[in-house]
This record gives sequence, structure tokens and C-alpha cells, in this order.
Amino acid sequence: MNDRSDRHLLGEASVAVVGLGLIGGSIAAALRARQYSGNVVGVGRSRERLEGALAAGLVDEVTTESPRGSLVVYCTPVDLVAEQVRSHSETFEPGTLVTDAGSVKGAIRDAMPRLAGGVEYVGSHPLAGSEKTGYEHAAPDLFVDRVCIVTPDESTTPEARQRLERFWAFLGMRVVEMSAEQHDRVLGMTSHVPHAVASAVAGVLADAEAPFAATGFRDTTRIAAGDPAIWVPILLANRDAALAGLDRVRGRLDEFRHAVKYGDARALDRLLAEGARNREALDD
Amino acid sequence: MNDRSDRHLLGEASVAVVGLGLIGGSIAAALRARQYSGNVVGVGRSRERLEGALAAGLVDEVTTESPRGSLVVYCTPVDLVAEQVRSHSETFEPGTLVTDAGSVKGAIRDAMPRLAGGVEYVGSHPLAGSEKTGYEHAAPDLFVDRVCIVTPDESTTPEARQRLERFWAFLGMRVVEMSAEQHDRVLGMTSHVPHAVASAVAGVLADAEAPFAATGFRDTTRIAAGDPAIWVPILLANRDAALAGLDRVRGRLDEFRHAVKYGDARALDRLLAEGARNREALDD
Repeated sequence: MNDRSDRHLLGEASVAVVGLGLIGGSIAAALRARQYSGNVVGVGRSRERLEGALAAGLVDEVTTESPRGSLVVYCTPVDLVAEQVRSHSETFEPGTLVTDAGSVKGAIRDAMPRLAGGVEYVGSHPLAGSEKTGYEHAAPDLFVDRVCIVTPDESTTPEARQRLERFWAFLGMRVVEMSAEQHDRVLGMTSHVPHAVASAVAGVLADAEAPFAATGFRDTTRIAAGDPAIWVPILLANRDAALAGLDRVRGRLDEFRHAVKYGDARALDRLLAEGARNREALDD
Repeated sequence: MNDRSDRHLLGEASVAVVGLGLIGGSIAAALRARQYSGNVVGVGRSRERLEGALAAGLVDEVTTESPRGSLVVYCTPVDLVAEQVRSHSETFEPGTLVTDAGSVKGAIRDAMPRLAGGVEYVGSHPLAGSEKTGYEHAAPDLFVDRVCIVTPDESTTPEARQRLERFWAFLGMRVVEMSAEQHDRVLGMTSHVPHAVASAVAGVLADAEAPFAATGFRDTTRIAAGDPAIWVPILLANRDAALAGLDRVRGRLDEFRHAVKYGDARALDRLLAEGARNREALDD
């Protein structure tokens, strides 16, 4: 956990944000809102999108080429991060810290190229976002009071660890360290499986039923609106944890099914009470 | 669908609301907010709760006995409605219109006693609510622009139909008629199954995972916080539709599982895209 008092002390000369979607755009917006004094560079493939972000005042400069920045943050789909780092790695300056905001950590680390010249990669996952996409929905307060998981390993230098923690804390986040493996197991259950479940419920809704989908249905399926281009790679990159989580949910649904089928009010009450208790323990 | 211009023309001398939970309390609050000129009677079992609602200005009078009202609305758990109507039926005045706000319609209708003396029952289901309970969370605008399903049958008089529609329209609702059977099939999929699914996802969350449950998990599981005392009877009373809906979701989850297991990006993309399309078609 961070000390919030260091928020004006982000010691990075410049921050390059690769991918100006909701997360990348919000990082840029948050840096601006928190009066980061260094340069913010937006990096992307579409010149038009980049010019839009520049015109919106999100970033100080833009490029479609290899980014310069003392800190480079990849906010692109999880299957692209390592390949982009590889293609950019020759122009990184010594001492560059590389991170990403991807929702899986093991697969990205495994695919990451070896970095030389004092360039270091440490994975991050800010637990913030929404079903919306694009920097047009960027929000400078997206990260405030949220958790950011960072996944250093035995090769990570104390300096890199400290810089990374300082960066996310600067955006208002509480930083928690864990291994990439533990991250993927936990997030499989708290994020990737709920996404598949929400999508499954939305996916089987018939057109004739849709007019009668009220608040409960809308809440339960909200994240299903997320972009498949982001979620296909996440689910595939976290295969084992996703399968294990899907099995846990399926087992539980089978218990519901059994209790409903046989009119077992007591079992149904226990199932619903456990769900209610777990949900109420979350603070919203 | 109603003509909103008739909102000041609710021709009921008095409205009795049985059960001052979220729905009953919000009906009372909405009648007040819309300057209903008749008497609003709160009916319940707990004298203390009733006095609280009276003190809060939600209702004009309260009773733990049989209610008087030209319109009596039962907002109690679905397994109690018919029995309560039975116990109250001897004191209903001629011309009383009885309805309920329960989430299942077939089982309530089947259990309903035969009513004499010009007393008529027609089922209703206002599609509004939240995971919160109790009149303390009552909101006068809970029903505005929401759909209310009413379930007349061949024995329903045109007058009862018109009075019921006028009542829900007075609260700001769009009224849709269908059979009790159709209601239960549709709501099984749009409400009862999502409740079980949300509860299943919340129910399998381990304590160690809970700190990392972010917005997506919270949205997906929000309704799981609902009161089991309300939801056990709903799921049991809509057994066939709930089982059919659970099977639809399970089949879909099995497709997700298969696609993840075998790394089938194309199948996964199709599944997620269908879910996203269905969810985006809902207007929030």
C-alpha cells in the first residue's frame, strides 16, 4: 500500500502511453489532472486517433513510432503487449521502466523479450475500467482508491519496484504486489469468469425477451458489452484459471438446478444466503 | 401502453398496500409524490414497522388487520400473497380490486381463492426494484418509465383491466398485458435465472479473492445481495421456466468452456460478440 503524500513526487521525466483506449486515455488524463510536470506521449497506430487525443489535450505529443519515455506503459490487448515491446525495445533509452496494464500477467511475462541496457519490465494490472472503450470515455479519476496489482519477480530490482509503485500511487491507486501466477488465479475468478458468465446470460436472451430485461438483468450483464477483441485474448491467455473458475460456477449452478428441480427450499436458501453474504461483504 | 395525461385521474377512493418493503413503500411514496388525493393505508404484521412508515409520512393510516381500500396491492413474498388474500377476503368491500406485485404470476393465480361480491383479482408485476429491502429505501420515482406487466385472463372484466392499468400508469409505468404463463417464461429468463447466476458467482468467491473484486464483479453480482426470503419462493414457484433458463445458460457456458479449453479464438469471439450485441441493444 502506498503513502498518498508522495503524489507530487513522480520522478519520471516522461511517460509514454501505448494505446489510447479507456485505460491508456485515463492514465493520460489522470497525469494531467494531478499536474504531472513531465511529458506525456501518446503512442498508437492510427494517426487520426492520436491527433484526436492531442487535440483533446490528453497528451503532449503523439507518435506512431517507438515511444520515448522514462516510463512506458502498454495499454493494448494482452496478446499484443510483448510483441510491441519487442518491436520498440531497440530504441528504449537506458533506465527505461516498461510496464503494461493487461488483465493477464503470466502469459505477457512469458512472451516478453529479454531487455538489455538497464531496461526493465514489471507487469501491472490496475483494477479499474468499464465496458466502454476509447479515450473519449477517459476519466482522470478512474483509478482513485482502486487497487493496482503489480507482479515483480526475483529478477526485479528494488528501484523498478519503487518507481512502479510510485507511478500507480501518483494516480491514486493502492498498490498490491503478488506473483503473476497468483494474479492470474485470482483475476480468473474475480474478472475473467464473471465476464464469460455475463456474456453467456446476455447471449441467450431472445429478442422477444429483451423488452422485459430490467435493472437486475442489466447489472448482471453490463460487462458483456465489453469489446471481444480485448476479451478473447484475455480468456485464452488465462486458460487454466478460466476453466477452473468456470467449473466452480458450473458446479454451483448445478446445485441451484438441483434445489429448484426438487423443490429443496432449504438448500436454495443456503445457496442464496451464501451469495448474499459474499456480495454484501463487498463495499458497494 | 398508457396515456400519461391521465395521471391525475386515479379514480380509486383508497389504496391499501400490504407489505411495506421496497416495492410497497415505493408505491406509497409514489402515490404521495403524484398527489394522489385518496387515502393510502399501510398493512403489515409488525406494528413497529407500520408506525415507522406512518411517522415517515409514507401512508395515511396503518393496520395489522384486514385492509380496507378500493384497490388492495399485495407487495409480500410470492408464497404469501394468495394466503393473505384468503384471510382478508371476507372483509373486502364490493367492487374491491385486488392485485399484487409478485415476480411470479402463474403460481399466485393458481393459489388464489375464489372471490365473490364483485371483488376481482388481476395479477401485476412492476419491473422495478433493487437488491435493497425495506421502506427505508422507498423511492417515489422507482416506477417511472418502467414496464409493468399485468396478467388478466378470460374472466377479467374490462373495468378491472382499465382500473389496474390506470393505477400503474398513475405511478408513471408503461403497462403491458400478457398471460401469466408468458410472464413466467419471460421473467424466468430476464430475472429469476440472472438472480441464480449472480448468486452462484458471488457464492463461489473465496475470502482471499474478495479484495480484488472490481467493478465488473460487483455489477455482475449486485442482485445476489437480494433477500433469500424473497427469492427462494420465486425460484420454486417458477420451477419450469427457471430450469429451462438455467439450462440455456449452462449450455452457453459449456460453449465458452469448450472454446477456452481448445483455444478456439473464433468460437470465443462469436460467443462474446453475440453477448455484446444483445447487451448493447438494451438501452443502458
